[in-house]
Amino acid sequence: MLQELSSNITKQNFGYSFSSFKDNFKFGKLNHIAIVVPDLQKSAKLHKEVFGAECSGEIEIPEHGVKTVFAKYENTKVELLHPLGEKSPIDKFLKQNPLGKVHHLCYEVEDLAEAIVHVKRMGVRTLGKKPKIGAHGKPVMFLHPKDCDGVLIEMEQK
Amino acid sequence: MLQELSSNITKQNFGYSFSSFKDNFKFGKLNHIAIVVPDLQKSAKLHKEVFGAECSGEIEIPEHGVKTVFAKYENTKVELLHPLGEKSPIDKFLKQNPLGKVHHLCYEVEDLAEAIVHVKRMGVRTLGKKPKIGAHGKPVMFLHPKDCDGVLIEMEQK
Repeated sequence: MLQELSSNITKQNFGYSFSSFKDNFKFGKLNHIAIVVPDLQKSAKLHKEVFGAECSGEIEIPEHGVKTVFAKYENTKVELLHPLGEKSPIDKFLKQNPLGKVHHLCYEVEDLAEAIVHVKRMGVRTLGKKPKIGAHGKPVMFLHPKDCDGVLIEMEQK
Repeated sequence: MLQELSSNITKQNFGYSFSSFKDNFKFGKLNHIAIVVPDLQKSAKLHKEVFGAECSGEIEIPEHGVKTVFAKYENTKVELLHPLGEKSPIDKFLKQNPLGKVHHLCYEVEDLAEAIVHVKRMGVRTLGKKPKIGAHGKPVMFLHPKDCDGVLIEMEQK
């Protein structure tokens, strides 16, 4: 359905297309900021004991190749990520940024299928054609960083 | 006063010091995520017309060498930054990251002086010795990215 819909939409030039289009779509809350870190326990301590955030325990998600800790702040969360296993999708990212680096920003959307149609219609590319089940069990879709000021954006079904 | 206090605090090794220290300090809200962008108007359109955020107009802050647009989301803001003038402090950052990149994360704190003493006591370095007045008229202090997983953190007086 999604693919069918989006294939009917002519891809427009990003810099100019969206100004001519108005609808009521909008991102909801910033669910989390994901940061890839070199030492998960040390980072968890930083967020818990220096910044005062409420932190989860360490969670291994083998199917996504990551270990994670969530740090909860007043209005949003920080997701600390570290590679798990040999073929982790964030292994190269950490090697390129050994101190750590912001990996992505995740926004909630009311209706992921609608959101995908909307962003594509506005000329923003998605990574992959179909939503996947994200690390937290909800459908997600990533947007191409080249269309979003070099920042990887995750849209997560609310 | 701040300098006097902090000079009395022995700098401890970051990896081990903070686990032995407990108090009730904590960061408040994530006030904003700052992103340095190559084209401020295009980025403002992305946040307004693709992501549906409420955006401010373009604001020039010559004393900080930046032009900025704020994009307001349900629970936090994104601050889009672009260099202004020849000696902008973010000029090199944009040259190194021509697509754009997350520049810093800003958290609110109830009492900036107390926050500075706290983070230093925990072994996290600040950039500069004294708070400065930030781009939005409030006292701010930045934390050293090398002590914060490669991420530049701004603490802002609430």
